[in-house]
Order: sequence, then C-alpha cells, then structure tokens
Amino acid sequence: MIAASYVGDRTVEVNPYTPSTPSSGEVRVRVSFVGLCGTDLHILHGSMDARVQVPLTFGHEMSGVVESVGAGVQNWQVGDAVTVMPLDWDGTCPACIAGHTHICQNLNFIGIDSPGALQTLWNVPADTLVRLPSDLALEVAALVEPVAVAVHDVRRSEVAAGDKAVVIGGGPIGLLIASVARQYGADVVLIEPDQHRRGLIASLGITTLDPGATDQTDFVEEWTGHAGADVVFEVSGSAAAMRGATGLAKVRGTIVIVAIHPTPREIDLQRVFWRELRLLGARVYQRTDFEEAVRLLQAGVIDTDAVITAIVPLDRIPEAVAELEAGRAMKVLVDVRQAEDLA
Amino acid sequence: MIAASYVGDRTVEVNPYTPSTPSSGEVRVRVSFVGLCGTDLHILHGSMDARVQVPLTFGHEMSGVVESVGAGVQNWQVGDAVTVMPLDWDGTCPACIAGHTHICQNLNFIGIDSPGALQTLWNVPADTLVRLPSDLALEVAALVEPVAVAVHDVRRSEVAAGDKAVVIGGGPIGLLIASVARQYGADVVLIEPDQHRRGLIASLGITTLDPGATDQTDFVEEWTGHAGADVVFEVSGSAAAMRGATGLAKVRGTIVIVAIHPTPREIDLQRVFWRELRLLGARVYQRTDFEEAVRLLQAGVIDTDAVITAIVPLDRIPEAVAELEAGRAMKVLVDVRQAEDLA
Repeated sequence: MIAASYVGDRTVEVNPYTPSTPSSGEVRVRVSFVGLCGTDLHILHGSMDARVQVPLTFGHEMSGVVESVGAGVQNWQVGDAVTVMPLDWDGTCPACIAGHTHICQNLNFIGIDSPGALQTLWNVPADTLVRLPSDLALEVAALVEPVAVAVHDVRRSEVAAGDKAVVIGGGPIGLLIASVARQYGADVVLIEPDQHRRGLIASLGITTLDPGATDQTDFVEEWTGHAGADVVFEVSGSAAAMRGATGLAKVRGTIVIVAIHPTPREIDLQRVFWRELRLLGARVYQRTDFEEAVRLLQAGVIDTDAVITAIVPLDRIPEAVAELEAGRAMKVLVDVRQAEDLA
Repeated sequence: MIAASYVGDRTVEVNPYTPSTPSSGEVRVRVSFVGLCGTDLHILHGSMDARVQVPLTFGHEMSGVVESVGAGVQNWQVGDAVTVMPLDWDGTCPACIAGHTHICQNLNFIGIDSPGALQTLWNVPADTLVRLPSDLALEVAALVEPVAVAVHDVRRSEVAAGDKAVVIGGGPIGLLIASVARQYGADVVLIEPDQHRRGLIASLGITTLDPGATDQTDFVEEWTGHAGADVVFEVSGSAAAMRGATGLAKVRGTIVIVAIHPTPREIDLQRVFWRELRLLGARVYQRTDFEEAVRLLQAGVIDTDAVITAIVPLDRIPEAVAELEAGRAMKVLVDVRQAEDLA
C-alpha cells in the first residue's frame, strides 16, 4: 500500500504504509482516482503550514470502492462504488446547531485537517460516503467534489433560467460553475485572461471574454441591455477582479465570492449601496450538492473530457503539480490503483 | 414666501421667492418642518457639486399640509397632513421594470436632483405624498423619512425576534436602526466612539459599546455565545469599521451596508467566504417602509425627543449646520412656518 504525503518544505513523498482496519462507524475505501485542486497546491506551497500537520496525506476529490466496513456500519457493502464528502463537523457549535454543518466552526476538512485520499486504502466515517451509480466511470466520479462546489455556488446564487451570469476566472471551478449555471438555464459569459484556457472553454460553447482586449463593464452593459448581470461569480481571487466585479452587477444583483482572497480586498461599497447589491460567500457544499453533482455527471451534462487534462500514477505527482502550477492543466487526476501496482 | 438654497461655495442663502402654481398631477404643500441630514451636509460641503445644480433648494425630510392641488389630482384635499417620499423614478429602466423603482437607474431624488422642501410652498408629484394621521405632531412627522430609512435597512436585514444585531455608528440613522430593530424583537448593541452620543443612546435603554475601550470582536463573541451576530449594520462610513465588521457576524450572518463609503474599502473576503456571510447594500426606502415609519411614530415606539436635538427657524440654518458639523446634534429640524413669518 502506498500513500502520498506533504512532508513540509514544498515536498511530496510517496511511500509504502500499513493501512489500519476501519474503526467502528468507519468504512475502508480502496481509492481509485484523486483529483488535485488549488487547495492541494496551497498545501504543497507551504501556504497552509500553520494549519496542516505534517506529514499530511492530502487529497479530497476522489472515487473508490468500499473495501471493508467497521462495526456498526449500515447500508454499505464491500464493492459499493463511492465518493466521499470530506466534511466532518462537530455537530455542537453554533453554526451546526443552526443547520450549517458544512461550515461548522470547528470543521475537520478531511484531506487538509486529517488524512486524505492519496492512499491505497483510506478509512473514512461511513456518513461521509456518497453512493455512485454503477454506470458512472470512476475517473469521472473523481470530479463529483469539484462539481459539488460549483453546484453549491450556483445554488447559493439563486440564478434562474434566463438570467445573465458572469463568471470571473476560467480555472476548473470557474469552468464547472459556467457549465452548471448554463445547465440551469442561465446565459453565461466567462472572463479569463489566459488564452489557452479561453480557447478550451470556448470550445465547449461557453462565451468567453479577454479582459485585456475588451472592456468588461462595457461588454456587460451592452450584453444586458444596460441592466447589468443578474449574478457575478468571483472565482479568480484577483484584487483587480474584485474591484471590477461590483460594476458588472444589476440593481439587486448578486456577487458570489467563490475564490479565496488571502488578504483584504478593496470593494466599491458605494456601488454596493447604490444598487443594493448582494455579496454572498460560498464555501464547500452540502450533501444535496454532492447528490446533484452525481446526477449531473451521470447525465453527461459536464464535459469531463475537457476538464480532465491528464491522469497520472501516484508516483508522478510532482510532475502533475508542476503542470498545474504552470497553468497548463485544467484538472489532473491521480490514478491511485496504479500506485498500488508500484508497491 | 421664503426658500433656503445651496448656491455653491459652501454657502446657503435664504431668500424670498414667488411660488408657482401646481402643475397637472402635482400638489402644493405648505411645508411645516424639514429635518437636516448627512446628505444635506454633503451638499453644503460641496461634495456633491458634480451632481447638484445650483442654486438648489434642498431638504427632503419633511412634514406639511396640502395647500392646493393641480389638475387631475385625486384623493388629496386642501388641509391634508402629509409627508413626501422624495423619489421620482422613470418607470422604464431595467431596475424599475424589475420592480425596484426606489433605486431606479435614473432616479430623481427630490431635494437633491430637483428642488426640495426648504421652501414655504413646495410643488411635488401627488404620488409622492404619504398621508399622516391627524394625531401625529408635524414635528414628529418630519422624522418619517429617516425612520423609513431605518425600517428599510432593518427589513432588508431580515432580522428576526431574538436575533442579536450590532449597529456600527450612533448618528441619527444608527440610533433609528437600533430602535426599529429592537422594536422587531432584536437584541441590539450599538458601537459608537463619541461619548456624548453613547450617553444619549444609552439613556434610551440601548446597550452601547465604546470601540476605543472594549475589543468589539471579543465582546460580540462573548455576547453571542461564540456564534457571532445575526446582523451587523454598518452605518458609520468608516474604513476601520468596515474592516472590522466581517469579524462580528455569525456563520451565514448578514452585514447591511447603510453608510456611504466614498472610496473603495478593504473587506476581509476570506471571512466572507469562510462563514458564507451575506453583505447587502440598502438604499432609501419603498412605500411600505414609509407607511411602517408612520405607524411606528404614531405608536410612539421611537423616542423622538431624544432624536430631535433642536428646532430652528429657516433663517438660522447656518447655525444648525455648524451644530451638526460639530457632531453635537442628533437631528435638527427647520421650522419653515417661522420662516414664512420672517418674509
């Protein structure tokens, strides 16, 4: 059995390990595919060293198959295809009591705050499992987590059929938000400075805009008949994007803050006031988002071929990370089964 | 007949004028009392010179009595006690078509964009009139407009009975928001650095906090059992207040942007994301807010004695402005009837 761990100092190590048996209430999952995401890069860059305990087996976007079940586990059997909703809440904090368990004030995000999916056999609480339909390829199912993020963001925006939505930022989450919003009937424009990403996204039939070539405010004014966009998704994390976002939204329009902005950002509050805008933070997902993500992937409405740039074996993680850092890749999956072969 | 006008260069002039007869669809109101507000000060300071056309007869918080009616006016008779909702929308812009007439994209705010209430006889569109009950003193009725602002802000916040609300800023609008939120069952703390204002507000039974003496974040943490406030009203316009506001709100809490922030402000978007906060701009009011404000004032739930610092005749406006600029006054009313006596 093999696991990939961040050991500090921008270093990943892939090593054999001895898996433990699942405790009571746990399930041991044989991991198939794990997607790498921006948060994983933040971990590997050391930006989250204050939060993570090394060595950390990371990874939280995955698919797999139940390998064994601990005592007291109902409803799950060996061989079931599953993904994991990697949230473990305390159930007792004010946020949990108010029903917002997904953003528990003491949330254990599995794969960041506790060991994640980049290991052959992974023990998780049984209630984090989400069932996968038998006809959903496990490669595709590794996208359930990021699609659930997009579903959560779109659901939180309350975008409606016929609405005009702007997505700022054309990484994997921006692309998935655009895809989900379009599926829900919105008319979408995605703003992305990188030509390569714009080309990929445009090939899916999504209108893209190069903010270096076109004045985005003028474009949105014209596109919306001088109303402004119903919804703006800020997925870039850029200070400049945030400064411009308020100028794109209609009266009583919504701006969803999806990206992580590590430092405070300047926002035109005069515009927020003047147009009675609504800014909403949107973080992770709820079970309903996971279930909807499974449905959308099963229905084939997400172009997963465009999203998945490459599938690499576990021992090639450093190369995959370099590819992601260079902005050349959309989503890279790690095939953990191949890693097992290496062991 | 006498009118007070801003003539540019930080100067107010009080001069006789000849009133015009009301046009078709207009009503001529004999003005009783006019409240001075922060926006009026902005006008007088020249901060809104790019927007206003001088000479501008300003003033938009008022009470009065119908003096004559133009052709085609139904439902209004000479002698009716009235206030004016000073919003004149075009009805054709995207915001109006979507039902948000109060923040019409081409709004004529009467008293800023067209002549206001500081004149003996004032012509206004009949559909801006709001009826006053006969038992509501006209001095008190001059507060309907700012109370309607507070009602709008509180309604927009969706604060509920039992909620914990923080009001940042103890000027007239902050005080009125605190009063209205309390009336709706919220538990309120008002943050205000000025000792004099704090004293006045505390005398009304509203809990106040001196941000220079008490760590507001620690206070709110303890006060809310480490949940955070349900609602935060940002009424100060201060950059520092806005930087701190996100730290006061609970998971999925609401921050209402009431104040005018003339330049972009730094906001902790990481916190907005992390707690899935909601920031809402809130501007002016809708008719339902005006009607609710009339009801609240009639019911005596607003301590108008505390709000109204002084009532001065029209020719003493410069002194009233100086008092307001010094932060010594809460609300100063101008008695326009006395001005008529001077004429």
